[in-house]
Amino acid sequence: MIGLGRFGASLAKELIQLGYEVLGIDKDEEAVDELSDKLTHVVVADSTDEEVLRSLGIRNFDCVVVAIGDDIQASILTTILLKDIGVNNVVTKALSELHGKVLEKIGVDRVIFPERDMGIRVAHQLVSPNLLDYIELSKEYTIAELSVPRCLAGKTLRELDPRHRFGCSVVAINKKNNVVIAPTAEDTVEERDVMVLIGTKQQIDHFEHALIR
Amino acid sequence: MIGLGRFGASLAKELIQLGYEVLGIDKDEEAVDELSDKLTHVVVADSTDEEVLRSLGIRNFDCVVVAIGDDIQASILTTILLKDIGVNNVVTKALSELHGKVLEKIGVDRVIFPERDMGIRVAHQLVSPNLLDYIELSKEYTIAELSVPRCLAGKTLRELDPRHRFGCSVVAINKKNNVVIAPTAEDTVEERDVMVLIGTKQQIDHFEHALIR
Amino acid sequence: MIGLGRFGASLAKELIQLGYEVLGIDKDEEAVDELSDKLTHVVVADSTDEEVLRSLGIRNFDCVVVAIGDDIQASILTTILLKDIGVNNVVTKALSELHGKVLEKIGVDRVIFPERDMGIRVAHQLVSPNLLDYIELSKEYTIAELSVPRCLAGKTLRELDPRHRFGCSVVAINKKNNVVIAPTAEDTVEERDVMVLIGTKQQIDHFEHALIR
Amino acid sequence: MIGLGRFGASLAKELIQLGYEVLGIDKDEEAVDELSDKLTHVVVADSTDEEVLRSLGIRNFDCVVVAIGDDIQASILTTILLKDIGVNNVVTKALSELHGKVLEKIGVDRVIFPERDMGIRVAHQLVSPNLLDYIELSKEYTIAELSVPRCLAGKTLRELDPRHRFGCSVVAINKKNNVVIAPTAEDTVEERDVMVLIGTKQQIDHFEHALIR
Amino acid sequence: MIGLGRFGASLAKELIQLGYEVLGIDKDEEAVDELSDKLTHVVVADSTDEEVLRSLGIRNFDCVVVAIGDDIQASILTTILLKDIGVNNVVTKALSELHGKVLEKIGVDRVIFPERDMGIRVAHQLVSPNLLDYIELSKEYTIAELSVPRCLAGKTLRELDPRHRFGCSVVAINKKNNVVIAPTAEDTVEERDVMVLIGTKQQIDHFEHALIR
Amino acid sequence: MIGLGRFGASLAKELIQLGYEVLGIDKDEEAVDELSDKLTHVVVADSTDEEVLRSLGIRNFDCVVVAIGDDIQASILTTILLKDIGVNNVVTKALSELHGKVLEKIGVDRVIFPERDMGIRVAHQLVSPNLLDYIELSKEYTIAELSVPRCLAGKTLRELDPRHRFGCSVVAINKKNNVVIAPTAEDTVEERDVMVLIGTKQQIDHFEHALIR
Amino acid sequence: MIGLGRFGASLAKELIQLGYEVLGIDKDEEAVDELSDKLTHVVVADSTDEEVLRSLGIRNFDCVVVAIGDDIQASILTTILLKDIGVNNVVTKALSELHGKVLEKIGVDRVIFPERDMGIRVAHQLVSPNLLDYIELSKEYTIAELSVPRCLAGKTLRELDPRHRFGCSVVAINKKNNVVIAPTAEDTVEERDVMVLIGTKQQIDHFEHALIR
Amino acid sequence: MIGLGRFGASLAKELIQLGYEVLGIDKDEEAVDELSDKLTHVVVADSTDEEVLRSLGIRNFDCVVVAIGDDIQASILTTILLKDIGVNNVVTKALSELHGKVLEKIGVDRVIFPERDMGIRVAHQLVSPNLLDYIELSKEYTIAELSVPRCLAGKTLRELDPRHRFGCSVVAINKKNNVVIAPTAEDTVEERDVMVLIGTKQQIDHFEHALIR
Repeated sequence: MIGLGRFGASLAKELIQLGYEVLGIDKDEEAVDELSDKLTHVVVADSTDEEVLRSLGIRNFDCVVVAIGDDIQASILTTILLKDIGVNNVVTKALSELHGKVLEKIGVDRVIFPERDMGIRVAHQLVSPNLLDYIELSKEYTIAELSVPRCLAGKTLRELDPRHRFGCSVVAINKKNNVVIAPTAEDTVEERDVMVLIGTKQQIDHFEHALIR
Repeated sequence: MIGLGRFGASLAKELIQLGYEVLGIDKDEEAVDELSDKLTHVVVADSTDEEVLRSLGIRNFDCVVVAIGDDIQASILTTILLKDIGVNNVVTKALSELHGKVLEKIGVDRVIFPERDMGIRVAHQLVSPNLLDYIELSKEYTIAELSVPRCLAGKTLRELDPRHRFGCSVVAINKKNNVVIAPTAEDTVEERDVMVLIGTKQQIDHFEHALIR
Repeated sequence: MIGLGRFGASLAKELIQLGYEVLGIDKDEEAVDELSDKLTHVVVADSTDEEVLRSLGIRNFDCVVVAIGDDIQASILTTILLKDIGVNNVVTKALSELHGKVLEKIGVDRVIFPERDMGIRVAHQLVSPNLLDYIELSKEYTIAELSVPRCLAGKTLRELDPRHRFGCSVVAINKKNNVVIAPTAEDTVEERDVMVLIGTKQQIDHFEHALIR
Repeated sequence: MIGLGRFGASLAKELIQLGYEVLGIDKDEEAVDELSDKLTHVVVADSTDEEVLRSLGIRNFDCVVVAIGDDIQASILTTILLKDIGVNNVVTKALSELHGKVLEKIGVDRVIFPERDMGIRVAHQLVSPNLLDYIELSKEYTIAELSVPRCLAGKTLRELDPRHRFGCSVVAINKKNNVVIAPTAEDTVEERDVMVLIGTKQQIDHFEHALIR
Repeated sequence: MIGLGRFGASLAKELIQLGYEVLGIDKDEEAVDELSDKLTHVVVADSTDEEVLRSLGIRNFDCVVVAIGDDIQASILTTILLKDIGVNNVVTKALSELHGKVLEKIGVDRVIFPERDMGIRVAHQLVSPNLLDYIELSKEYTIAELSVPRCLAGKTLRELDPRHRFGCSVVAINKKNNVVIAPTAEDTVEERDVMVLIGTKQQIDHFEHALIR
Repeated sequence: MIGLGRFGASLAKELIQLGYEVLGIDKDEEAVDELSDKLTHVVVADSTDEEVLRSLGIRNFDCVVVAIGDDIQASILTTILLKDIGVNNVVTKALSELHGKVLEKIGVDRVIFPERDMGIRVAHQLVSPNLLDYIELSKEYTIAELSVPRCLAGKTLRELDPRHRFGCSVVAINKKNNVVIAPTAEDTVEERDVMVLIGTKQQIDHFEHALIR
Repeated sequence: MIGLGRFGASLAKELIQLGYEVLGIDKDEEAVDELSDKLTHVVVADSTDEEVLRSLGIRNFDCVVVAIGDDIQASILTTILLKDIGVNNVVTKALSELHGKVLEKIGVDRVIFPERDMGIRVAHQLVSPNLLDYIELSKEYTIAELSVPRCLAGKTLRELDPRHRFGCSVVAINKKNNVVIAPTAEDTVEERDVMVLIGTKQQIDHFEHALIR
Repeated sequence: MIGLGRFGASLAKELIQLGYEVLGIDKDEEAVDELSDKLTHVVVADSTDEEVLRSLGIRNFDCVVVAIGDDIQASILTTILLKDIGVNNVVTKALSELHGKVLEKIGVDRVIFPERDMGIRVAHQLVSPNLLDYIELSKEYTIAELSVPRCLAGKTLRELDPRHRFGCSVVAINKKNNVVIAPTAEDTVEERDVMVLIGTKQQIDHFEHALIR
């Protein structure tokens, strides 16, 4: 993990959480200090210096994530150095479309746009207050997680009948203590349950507007 | 939308995409200029000045998002001003847990941590290369979108049999031209198809390790 | 005492004077050095760092005063940290009304506005040259300390008769060598004596205009 | 009013409140703008430029207050210019004892130390929680405003008997709706009433410790 | 010509000299002003802004030289933009080997290293004081321009006989008023004449050491 | 070598390459560190301090190159100090004509303009795509190195006949494996060979336009 | 006059006083504004820009004084430009010996060291409290202006007899209302008169020590 | 000597030259280092800190010169501290008339204006090219040192007759090897001799214009 800003730090901590070993590198001593007891190793180093990277044995890592915050130049130079050194899997955060394009040209294995992607994700949640999370399956289909409002409490799926009325299906109901997978028509939803629906965006939108809001 | 940095700009543009009207406010003229032809309105203004906010009729907005980049003070003062003025729904981006705590105390309606959340999301994708996206239903259950590798091409769900062997179910298969919802045991998966599974994290993990990688 | 600017330093030194133990904390080494031999302890530390505060045993202090000069963000984050840690009595200096409002929301025990309050106090002294000091009892009543000009030298209270002519009473006369409490009508005032009057602001104002100026 | 920082602004606004005309001068356009609709006149000007001061007719003002925030040099040069021009009454805020000494040497009419004085005042209030405000009559005698705690509710002054037990007298009781001046021994105090006492600091301190806390 | 520093300006002026039309672009107004009457057109513009480049019709230029001084990021982003827009021939100045490597990866048509190349050229001239200029034909062969010192004045090529004694040939003698191409053995050299020799570096070096110095 | 910027570093490294000992001096520690294992000695020092220069025994060096990057003042003061101390051969890089003029007046032994000279050299190469390098012999005559395009492959010099048709002669042909010096009319050129021509600029230009492009 | 700092401004104003026309040039608008009504003309201009200097007709001035405060580079470049343009008489202020040496090499007509010279002058006045001013005639001889102390009041020159006792002569006595040139032995000196003596430094020193101090 | 800028350093070095012991104080380490082997003692210290000054035993010095360069505040505070501490003789350099006025008010023993005075002195020398130096005796009378031009070479004072023709007297002639004090009418002046004249400014001016120029 090169770059320990807010995004890099969060990513690094989650990887630790998932049981991986993480070496954190940043030019800024303060950022490094803050994570020194949370990551496997931390180093204050300039990632655009080839000798530094080699001396860290960077080539042996399964994956190197370049999450440098605001310095496009450092991000590009670090990435090309890593590929030159022979790192297999380099994932770099891009700050703009143009930055992303350069990264692709110089051979990065994966470009990520966390601020852009998170902006899009939050936008969807803002406009659908009951939408908790979603996955875009294709340009048309979406899996959406919707919280059940009080007005629907106690209803069966048969009563709601999303399949016939709106074309979308309930694939699971997340209840307080268990998750009902592939619920039947007799299953009921309660306030604060969460329904997982699959369908086109429009179908889910209609369902949400008609029944939930 | 107050604060038009990378996250704020992406969020604003997606809201426009979703058909909403968005007023963008930032102190930085350059940031404002860049979005001037993409948002409904843009204003160069200091959001910690009450009169400025009132003169913009901020009270009439359905929702105000405070996505100020690095200035915790401006973020806090803007948020309390908005609640004081009487804005119904104020969503503020927090830069740290402490910042988030202050925001909650002063009555914000929703705190978001985009860098932290995106860090977590990317971490999961890094450790499971076939994992395209996922929703956490509960502490245990997850819906995961996994790409189908070459080695499974042409297999039926019966052959894979995730339900019996790993405990998780396939709720949809995203094929090139259509999405198969609630697939039967005879449905086959092809390379580059995407399976949507529901199950506990461990079940899906096992499935991925055993069959896919 | 967190923040050792002019106000914080003066407050800390007076508390020492009054026999209390004071620990002074500031980020600025110079400010800390200057007070190192005047306070019980001084520390150069960043008060927005929870571990630092805990390591100082801040929870055991009777009272923590946050007198951070110009950094509203540090003032807010320090205050919420102190309350979080469980300090009983946190007094924080506010730089503006808005800042004060945030402080109250996050649970500070007392907000002080020294510059604002001192501005008001000095204003009153400027407009009444004989007014040395005053206490506002209520919206109407004030206790005022007025110096006796030469023209009243040698007069008895009976001659001045503030009670009947203006409605306000003399509760004490501060003479060179002693203070006459509850003076009688026969007591005289001399030049440079100081009268303590109680009455409405208007009454004292009239008295001052009629007799003293 | 030269210098419109927090102290200067508060002083200027209170003078307006008291019915005086105030011209506000500051080098900082922002500070001036903020007060433009609250003071009689405001001017963005450099107060160390003699011609500027003369062109403002500064000589005709009854009193000029120099409340320049952090720039000792500007404070000194402005003050000597004002005395040179012939302003009768120049009051200047000092930032340190040394600064104050220079101001006196160059002929200022009055030096004020608002941060130092407010630090002392707040210190006294911190150490005596019931002390609301006070006037120092002499090195020994003080008039203090003490709030009445629940434990004394309903007691008469005879019962409290501060005169005989502690040597200090109650000169007034501030009750919810009126102020009792020169209360008799039969007057009672209620919770949230405020007693005004006169006595030596020690006497009042003893009284507070014995009865109130 | 994007970037009008010392190198860029010199290059642009020489191109004008050679009869070409040159458009000069720089972010720095001062640099642009200085060349405004020397180039065909000059523009103050940010070359990392795609719209700016398009509005200048940059696609129609035969060749675009990116000679940005010290900002590697701007150099990279400008170069990729130019290739994206479809400019045929993009020549970019690199500040370091790593920078050059990135430029090649993103598809620049030619990378130049003026400071490095000039450093090498000057080094050769410093160590051979009579060496005026040279061309490296291959790793071995060089064409060198050597000034004739006084000690050789009046000698014929037969007397010097570089071919037999050192293995290198004189291909031209630059005399005051004319250039003798393919000189014969009877041609003489005079002081301040310049001989052009062809041979291996070692041969020319030997010749210079033996006869000239 | 005083000044280890891009030009100075390249020059110093080439001198080492050529077998000379080089002492590198720069005020900037980072620049010095980077070359510490490439030059004979490196020193972090202020070259405008006479005692520093003397203590380095600068007088004993054969040649001192002042390649200070952007600080004209330091360049001038260092140069005059070196001549004062008695260094025989001082070569200084000039940033502008005016700077060069000052250097000459204060007695520098040689002024070099690397950015200007390289600008001119690159300009010539840009306008003649086949021109690889060139030496200006006089105002008229040039030796040019031209690459052979595919269309001329297999032709003999007799067929090309540059002498009669254009007035310029081929003095060498650089072939893959050897260099043919003074080629005969029967020698052929192949694609990617390089011809070295001598003639006036116009002759070589005509030759290039007629046959090569 | 190029450079309107304290020294330049004082010099320019005195020249005006002496009846000369003075054009003041400075890069700093504020410095120029301050003198705009005191000099014949003032211009905000960069004196290192040849075109600017030419456009001001600088060649026609009798004398150009370069009194640039702290920027040695600007001082050198301006001076060489002025000599290049053909100004007859260029006087430049040097900040150090090295700076002075460069100025002489580039052909300045006169170098002045005002701070150094004034330092020396003040030093002499500090060590001889009665010395008002002096001229150094040669390495030995000085003309000194000494104030007459009370202890010599009423004495005749015969009584003081500096010629015989110390070897120095009184060439003038400056009395309240007139100056006595070549005073006779009978002339008396009074307190506060000023004697002008001529002699060696030692003689005047002895005289001062013996009689005056 | 407090403040070791160009003026302070020159003054301190001259005092050393005159045989005095000098302690140099400056906040800037570099300035102090440069003089460390030229003054008796040097100290890096903040002269506005009373304890520092006391610890240096500043009270025992005969004279303290405050030659602080650009910081009026430090100059004022240091000066008042020195007088407070009880230094007998404090000489302070003023940067402006206003600064000088403040210094006088706070009790400095002597104010000097080196830049202003040197500006005036240089102005006189510029306008009279033969004027080498001068002393102003009174508003009218001056002693001037004029160099003898070639056109007067060999003339006797009788021939020049300044007394009768212009009213001014020659009090000395400075010749190559000796100084002729009170020269007779038969003394001749040679080229490069220096005449010392006494007279009114007008007389000396006329003499210079008529005979010398």
